[in-house]
Amino acid sequence: MTTATARAHPNIAFIKYWGNASDALRLPVNPSISMNLDGLYAETTVTWDEALPADTLRLNGKDEAGPALERVQRHLHAVRQHLRLTQYARVVSHNNFPTGTGIASSAAAFAALTVAAAGASGQAVPERALSTLARLGSGSAARSVPAGFVRWFTGDSHETSYAESFAAPDHWALVDVIAIVSDQHKATGSQEGHPTAPTSDLQAARVAGAAARFELCQQAILARDFDTFAEVVERDSNLMHAVMMTSRPPLFYWLPATLALMAAVRRWRAEGLRVCYTLDAGPNVHCICIREDADQVRERLWQHSGILEVRRATVGGGAALVNAG
Amino acid sequence: MTTATARAHPNIAFIKYWGNASDALRLPVNPSISMNLDGLYAETTVTWDEALPADTLRLNGKDEAGPALERVQRHLHAVRQHLRLTQYARVVSHNNFPTGTGIASSAAAFAALTVAAAGASGQAVPERALSTLARLGSGSAARSVPAGFVRWFTGDSHETSYAESFAAPDHWALVDVIAIVSDQHKATGSQEGHPTAPTSDLQAARVAGAAARFELCQQAILARDFDTFAEVVERDSNLMHAVMMTSRPPLFYWLPATLALMAAVRRWRAEGLRVCYTLDAGPNVHCICIREDADQVRERLWQHSGILEVRRATVGGGAALVNAG
Repeated sequence: MTTATARAHPNIAFIKYWGNASDALRLPVNPSISMNLDGLYAETTVTWDEALPADTLRLNGKDEAGPALERVQRHLHAVRQHLRLTQYARVVSHNNFPTGTGIASSAAAFAALTVAAAGASGQAVPERALSTLARLGSGSAARSVPAGFVRWFTGDSHETSYAESFAAPDHWALVDVIAIVSDQHKATGSQEGHPTAPTSDLQAARVAGAAARFELCQQAILARDFDTFAEVVERDSNLMHAVMMTSRPPLFYWLPATLALMAAVRRWRAEGLRVCYTLDAGPNVHCICIREDADQVRERLWQHSGILEVRRATVGGGAALVNAG
Repeated sequence: MTTATARAHPNIAFIKYWGNASDALRLPVNPSISMNLDGLYAETTVTWDEALPADTLRLNGKDEAGPALERVQRHLHAVRQHLRLTQYARVVSHNNFPTGTGIASSAAAFAALTVAAAGASGQAVPERALSTLARLGSGSAARSVPAGFVRWFTGDSHETSYAESFAAPDHWALVDVIAIVSDQHKATGSQEGHPTAPTSDLQAARVAGAAARFELCQQAILARDFDTFAEVVERDSNLMHAVMMTSRPPLFYWLPATLALMAAVRRWRAEGLRVCYTLDAGPNVHCICIREDADQVRERLWQHSGILEVRRATVGGGAALVNAG
């Protein structure tokens, strides 16, 4: 019986992942860029135990059955294959942030699960392999493995589709001030959403421009050029939601408060605040700003109606073992 | 001195016009479909007067100078060329509905202006020529010339880009229940918006699918097939706004109330009401419904917050002379 505990942060994408070249392998149709969100995390303990008749999952204090357990079991099956293990695992996990509301909980969950599972095996698994493995559980989990500012190449096979850091957490003092406008679990999760992407007449055009936006965003981050960064980040978010809203059937993740905040952020930037918005597959508005302006942004957000909560995250490190047994 | 008065209705597009192949000639990049809105109208009197030193415009009781007058003068210049006239004109016009808030006021205005100007000339100008002429003043004005359900072919020259009726007003008892959520003049009018369309990465894909949506919509109207109609009308509206929101700079016409009403309309349809939404370049929500369901739709709209006014229009006739002097 061997055990390990790992923590991983969720990440917020600046260049979005939407749509798979292979749903089974979660190979994305376009490269993406993200930063990890410090302070928010999933913490997961994996115990490989020869006495277990099947994998078990305890999530936020509750023993899980059904779809949540099955998804973890499928992932552990893949991990076993790659690490040549035979035991089943006991998985105990909790998040310190709500799930399913636009903060990518599955990314942190599968990054932590993968790193804990590998750690508990006693094998030294390189970061790149951990990223590819995490990807099998949830595409964007590949990006929660490396630290700081992260790029995920599409690749064309399991081995070549991985994420890596291109700038350390302290490279640029960005802050994600997250306006929570709904705590409802979203109607259509990312995993069910990705397969709908090709049903939009606009997806091919979004994908065709993604490499250029990826380059522009990466260069803007490396040069700490906020104006360029803000323009491409908002545009990329709008493009993904344009695809979602024109899929068949359409996926609308924006709530009225979402739209109001997007307009407010554009106005604040025109007034001189260094802030831009981006949205994942959910209604909450991630206000990405320069650290000096984060307090202003938070104050202004609270003056808006429809805000349930405001969270703040700086740039986070990679997924890492907390201890190993 | 000869005079004539014409009335024309605004129209609501089911397959949208967005983007020009020629801005000067207002040749659209895709074909479109609309219905005229009965009850709403522009009424315009044109007097060709040899004693006038220049064209004049009185709009809703106010003598106009500046951009509004200049746009009418440019249009009258084109009308003079096509009708081989030499006099200047006195134009007196009024709308019975507010301008610049998502009901296409310029369509009704330039259709009425064109028909009155031709009528006052004493020449018998065929409807097709009136439609092409009206198009020069405002693209969608081409569609306010013919009656009922109207299709506008792109054409590839001034003469070949015209609209014509493909079903009479009494063909299908559709009602446009218009939820007015803002009476502010929009920040970017259609005329300035069209040239921005190619700056969106998504416009080419929207245009590429337009002919298929045009066919589907036309067949649905001819067959009075509301389900097919609703799906393609909402999708086409979403596609146009997707292009707008991803233009550089982005154009956001939706207000929070707009988004809430769009979601409500989709919900009502799922519950069995025969209603769908479409939006022009503005925040107001056109709820297109079967006549039997229009009262229900109106009642439900009034239960929503953020509604300033609800208007109702059935299918209207074409632009026509009221009297000729």
